[in-house]
Amino acid sequence: MKQYLTLDEWKIIEEGFDPEKNRISESLFSIGNGRMGQRANFEEAYSGNTLQGNYVGGVYFPDKTRVGWWKNGYPEYFAKVLNAANWIGIDIDIEGEALDLAICKVNFFRRELNMKEGYLQRVFEVELPSTKKIQVKATRFLSMARHEVGVIKYTIVALNFNGRVTITPYIDFDVKNQDANYDEKFWEEINHNVEYTRGYVNARTKKLDFHVCAAMDYFITQHGSKVGITPDSADQRKYISSSMSLNMKSNEEITVYKFASICSSLNHPKEFLVENTLNVLNNAMLSGYDKLLDEHKQAWEKKWRESDIVIDGDVAAQQGIRFNIFQLYQTYTGDDERLNIGPKGFTGEKYGGSTYWDTEAYCLPFYMSTADEYVARNLLLYRYKHLQKAIENAEKLGFTGGAALYPMVTMNGEECHNEWEITFEEIHRNGAIAYAIFNYVRYTGHKEYLIEYGLEVLVAIARFWAQRVNFSREKNKYVILGTTGPNEYENNVNNNWYTNRIACWTMEYAMEAASYVSDSAPEKYTELVQKINFNQTREIDNWRHIIENMYYPVDEKQAVFLQQDGYLDKEQMLADDLPRKERPINQHWSWDRILRSCFIKQADVLQGLFFLEDQYDKDTLLRNFDFYEPRTVHESSLSPCVHSILAARLGEEEKAYDLYLRTARLDLDDYNNEASEGCHITSMAGTWMSVVMGFGGMRIVDDKLTFRPFIPRQWKSYAFKIQFRSHIISAKVTSVEVIITNQSDRQLDLVVFDQSLTIDPEKSLAVAHHQAAGT
Amino acid sequence: MKQYLTLDEWKIIEEGFDPEKNRISESLFSIGNGRMGQRANFEEAYSGNTLQGNYVGGVYFPDKTRVGWWKNGYPEYFAKVLNAANWIGIDIDIEGEALDLAICKVNFFRRELNMKEGYLQRVFEVELPSTKKIQVKATRFLSMARHEVGVIKYTIVALNFNGRVTITPYIDFDVKNQDANYDEKFWEEINHNVEYTRGYVNARTKKLDFHVCAAMDYFITQHGSKVGITPDSADQRKYISSSMSLNMKSNEEITVYKFASICSSLNHPKEFLVENTLNVLNNAMLSGYDKLLDEHKQAWEKKWRESDIVIDGDVAAQQGIRFNIFQLYQTYTGDDERLNIGPKGFTGEKYGGSTYWDTEAYCLPFYMSTADEYVARNLLLYRYKHLQKAIENAEKLGFTGGAALYPMVTMNGEECHNEWEITFEEIHRNGAIAYAIFNYVRYTGHKEYLIEYGLEVLVAIARFWAQRVNFSREKNKYVILGTTGPNEYENNVNNNWYTNRIACWTMEYAMEAASYVSDSAPEKYTELVQKINFNQTREIDNWRHIIENMYYPVDEKQAVFLQQDGYLDKEQMLADDLPRKERPINQHWSWDRILRSCFIKQADVLQGLFFLEDQYDKDTLLRNFDFYEPRTVHESSLSPCVHSILAARLGEEEKAYDLYLRTARLDLDDYNNEASEGCHITSMAGTWMSVVMGFGGMRIVDDKLTFRPFIPRQWKSYAFKIQFRSHIISAKVTSVEVIITNQSDRQLDLVVFDQSLTIDPEKSLAVAHHQAAGT
Repeated sequence: MKQYLTLDEWKIIEEGFDPEKNRISESLFSIGNGRMGQRANFEEAYSGNTLQGNYVGGVYFPDKTRVGWWKNGYPEYFAKVLNAANWIGIDIDIEGEALDLAICKVNFFRRELNMKEGYLQRVFEVELPSTKKIQVKATRFLSMARHEVGVIKYTIVALNFNGRVTITPYIDFDVKNQDANYDEKFWEEINHNVEYTRGYVNARTKKLDFHVCAAMDYFITQHGSKVGITPDSADQRKYISSSMSLNMKSNEEITVYKFASICSSLNHPKEFLVENTLNVLNNAMLSGYDKLLDEHKQAWEKKWRESDIVIDGDVAAQQGIRFNIFQLYQTYTGDDERLNIGPKGFTGEKYGGSTYWDTEAYCLPFYMSTADEYVARNLLLYRYKHLQKAIENAEKLGFTGGAALYPMVTMNGEECHNEWEITFEEIHRNGAIAYAIFNYVRYTGHKEYLIEYGLEVLVAIARFWAQRVNFSREKNKYVILGTTGPNEYENNVNNNWYTNRIACWTMEYAMEAASYVSDSAPEKYTELVQKINFNQTREIDNWRHIIENMYYPVDEKQAVFLQQDGYLDKEQMLADDLPRKERPINQHWSWDRILRSCFIKQADVLQGLFFLEDQYDKDTLLRNFDFYEPRTVHESSLSPCVHSILAARLGEEEKAYDLYLRTARLDLDDYNNEASEGCHITSMAGTWMSVVMGFGGMRIVDDKLTFRPFIPRQWKSYAFKIQFRSHIISAKVTSVEVIITNQSDRQLDLVVFDQSLTIDPEKSLAVAHHQAAGT
Repeated sequence: MKQYLTLDEWKIIEEGFDPEKNRISESLFSIGNGRMGQRANFEEAYSGNTLQGNYVGGVYFPDKTRVGWWKNGYPEYFAKVLNAANWIGIDIDIEGEALDLAICKVNFFRRELNMKEGYLQRVFEVELPSTKKIQVKATRFLSMARHEVGVIKYTIVALNFNGRVTITPYIDFDVKNQDANYDEKFWEEINHNVEYTRGYVNARTKKLDFHVCAAMDYFITQHGSKVGITPDSADQRKYISSSMSLNMKSNEEITVYKFASICSSLNHPKEFLVENTLNVLNNAMLSGYDKLLDEHKQAWEKKWRESDIVIDGDVAAQQGIRFNIFQLYQTYTGDDERLNIGPKGFTGEKYGGSTYWDTEAYCLPFYMSTADEYVARNLLLYRYKHLQKAIENAEKLGFTGGAALYPMVTMNGEECHNEWEITFEEIHRNGAIAYAIFNYVRYTGHKEYLIEYGLEVLVAIARFWAQRVNFSREKNKYVILGTTGPNEYENNVNNNWYTNRIACWTMEYAMEAASYVSDSAPEKYTELVQKINFNQTREIDNWRHIIENMYYPVDEKQAVFLQQDGYLDKEQMLADDLPRKERPINQHWSWDRILRSCFIKQADVLQGLFFLEDQYDKDTLLRNFDFYEPRTVHESSLSPCVHSILAARLGEEEKAYDLYLRTARLDLDDYNNEASEGCHITSMAGTWMSVVMGFGGMRIVDDKLTFRPFIPRQWKSYAFKIQFRSHIISAKVTSVEVIITNQSDRQLDLVVFDQSLTIDPEKSLAVAHHQAAGT
């Protein structure tokens, strides 16, 4: 743990410059607007250790796979997010010396991410090798209001000299992914131009022909007004710049306003891309810096109004949870159903910016509760649009008849990953995608989603499960062989309880959905039956037979579900028995040793009990929790939240809080020594769930919002906002009571501690904790 | 199957030139002398499809591993055999036209591998684009008598023209491995020189600093005498050549005699390497072509005298079995315990020329029975010398206290392979290495090997097993979790029967060996106990406890051993149920489908029953054979021989013969469409076993040689030679009797069809088949 940041409720603050931590800070201070994003690289040159990163959502590259030993069925390509144009660059030259923090003496440095208003700011004072001192204040944001616009205000003060300063804003598209399997550059230039202060570089990806145009313009103010110097422009392949040289006097300041627009062929016809990019730029220039910043702040104000969590009595926790909400909204705003949430968002290259089951299992609840309903719906539509590819993916593996296997890792619906034990065997992901449909319908009440889209996906997934099982004559039951569950510290196991359970659950829900659609929209149903060649009677009978005869591994003695066949043959140890120096085991043990140990990477049986909590009694939850939690090493950032929520459900408040702490400030305190590669965006949604579903005990039961909150004793109070079926609700929990406020204009029926309540519009209602007794 | 070769008892013959088959022929017609070898590439230039290959045994390169997803414990390097100097090259230029079979019209072409005398010959007649016709006869061999010498006799006849011919013998060390992970060249030149007709290139490997020097000299005869032209020499980095131009008349012939010596720093001090190489070359030149060929033939004559198998009534079978014996001896002669047997020998790059468990499980019996005893002993010493590395390898995976895990794939004792399911889990290889010691002692009677070397290895392997098991409270037995058995179509299984069995067997044998050594050489024993810190009482007690409490999966109903836990949960199908177009399944099914199917790649339970046949009654063998054979797809060339031998043991003669046929001409008829990459050298030893141990029923029982032969009804007779404890014995089997000849000068006691017999020196004895009745 290397906590070096200043605690603050609304800001992330780094005081003093430590080049060793620069890559970490570049990740943590990343900014984005859901369409594009970037690491907190410096505008001026920096010759020290840095990972430069500018990413445009939805623009990716199918990099040729690197594999040791090929297996049939592996994909040839791994789609990865592309490092795109660097548009932030402003070279500063002071009488022949470059401003570069790696070679200056840094007297003062403060980096600040203002989460409330959504901008990144650096203020620093440096002494150049020539002893000239300058002060810089740089403010940057990617507009939440205009998705293709980025803005920089960069102020320089000469502190102890008079001299000539050359300022060179530029766009550099000659970028490279750090993670490129064959060390290629992925972009080639189409054209570029630079005239006076304005220029652009228009480039295409070497495969798939995505076009991205990055344009910039700027002006400089001195003595409060724009300077009128004729700039020198320069250009080369994939690069344009425009320079101005000015004389500065001691204690005088000049300010560069740099405006950029970054547009892609996802949203513009290629033939008009340059023109449109310049139009976007023009409009931004015309609006001016202050207006752009104001719009941007307003957009963030709205987000916070609808999704903030306030924690009283614990600044670190307050900062941590806001950082999570902030990064999630910087990564994905839900306006475009072609986009999704990479595990690192726009904060790094790792995991290729691709979509994992993280989206459905962890992120969906966050967006469902904090954003307008179309946002969660867009997350579902993303998968709906990939259905045909998922069917083709299953066909590659020998499945037929419209069975779908969604990929483990994807950008455009095609599988990208190639480890057989994951690609081919971690098939539970298919269940999470089905469960997301259920979860969405349960939360929003929009059963009509099943008619339009949901049922088609559910049938395709159910068909997969129906083929993936086989009947064991030995057990006289259906079994699912050769799988990897959510716990990736087991590979190629038989009868992973979670997988067997989610498979049957999917078939049950598909049957229920089919029955709903056929009753409520018979014409649509008939249409679908024909479209997907659905042999209802035969297929549903088969599903029912499988559901009724599925085998689930259990330990009768301890009355717990078994993670998989043979789990009890392992040497039974507890995570606490592990020597400290051997943790995390994935850094200290060889893979075979991990595999044959009983240790669990992330929630597996408990993931199932979390999803299907209402199907199990509390004793069952408790026995399984008590068995699995001590065996779980939580070496995935996605794990503790699920355990925390279950602990909360079981009244184990201390445990719930301890588990929450494991990810609450995962990146800010860099627990895992990997923040330099980017932030754990998807696990941030899990942390949010720990608060709202764990501490807050929020559930949807019988179409009603319900709460069963408690407060960690370390906090004075906490409050969260959620949206539920057109209501905005705030819940504040103190040590004595829960105050629910209905901020909408319609009555709200809800349940708190098993009491049914009604709250009038704009009213609040308090329920004391002691009323929870006995639940 | 593309049989294009002419059947012949002693030769492999290709009539007519088919460029499409050239790579296959290059593999099949490979020559070698156990120290070095080469593919049957052409001496003259060839611009068509070819895989050039010249290999020097024991000289390898640690190529940087290519891996998709790194796992803790993976090795960083994969040692691979190096493509070394091309010393065969002789460019032929006829009045400005190069002789190149890819651009000539080939009127006649015959390639012949004379297995009896050990040389490769081509005779061909071509028409150049200019319509000039020439005839060539090229004979080449790598001397079996002088391990560093290669010789070529290359005769050209001008058929229809008078003209000038330029002949350019050369050495080219600027070679590349086709299989190089990062496309590097592995050699750098140290120096080279060429004067008159003689030159050399001396090079070192870029890693490990192996030096290899290749030198050549030549002369040309015309009209029956050496021509005295002053040659033109040429050189460049890693290349030297010397040319002579002569006038030829129609129907006149000239002959080039090219001599080469190839020496390495394995056998010469680096500082004298060039000098020594030139000395070897000098001596070869002084001896001359005829004497060198004669020595070489004599060496082969001895080999055949001691190891030939004669099959009467089936030329294809005769050719097949001799090809196998020939290639095995070209690959490994056993003179140098630093060398071993790569799966492709010197016939290709695949598998990197490294050592696998193939050596112990398949090759050892061949060399034990057909060569002097030191040969098999050298194969054991190879592993003895790697013991320390095997201990380090186990330490990398978390084992302690002198436990050894021999690598899956190795050149110098370090693990080269990186697939977790194989590298870390296919640990049964450790058992095969222990079993080889037992097998050697059983065959040779040299129990003193245990004192000097064997026990130390056995204890280290037993220690590994004792740590690799864990006690299952659930089963109240020891289990071995997370392994891959010989059947690589199952990965990461629990309680692979074969692995559990060979683990216990190793511990049993280690105990027996310890007891033998402590009784018969107490001082040596005490020395060893101290050296390896052997806590006899505690360790042996522990082994005994494990042996007595080991869990073995069985199916009580069918009374068969189960390949692993859960095997019967699979959908039970037979290989015959598979559609023809889906075989081999490894080319048609995705990996997960293969894994969860019941299909077996190669003998697994049956491998164990083969090794430990004498511990099981015939009914047990039969039940297991009947269960597993129909489920085995034999997609490893190492599989059918084991099944064939068991079938023979069980009296299923037709089945034994069918299984034998699957590999008898595997490469000659290119069953698997992969002969172009090289020959299946190690599986050739398996085919040999099918004849001698299968049809011949040879076993060693209670220190006695025993036979229980039958004859496939397709054959008139077959005869094989073996060496057994200083006896050379020949056995001839006809449809009515077995004739055993004792070719040595000492009496031989043996058992045929359970009858104890004695044969006097130089005498034969016949036993009729009907005497076998009832066994």
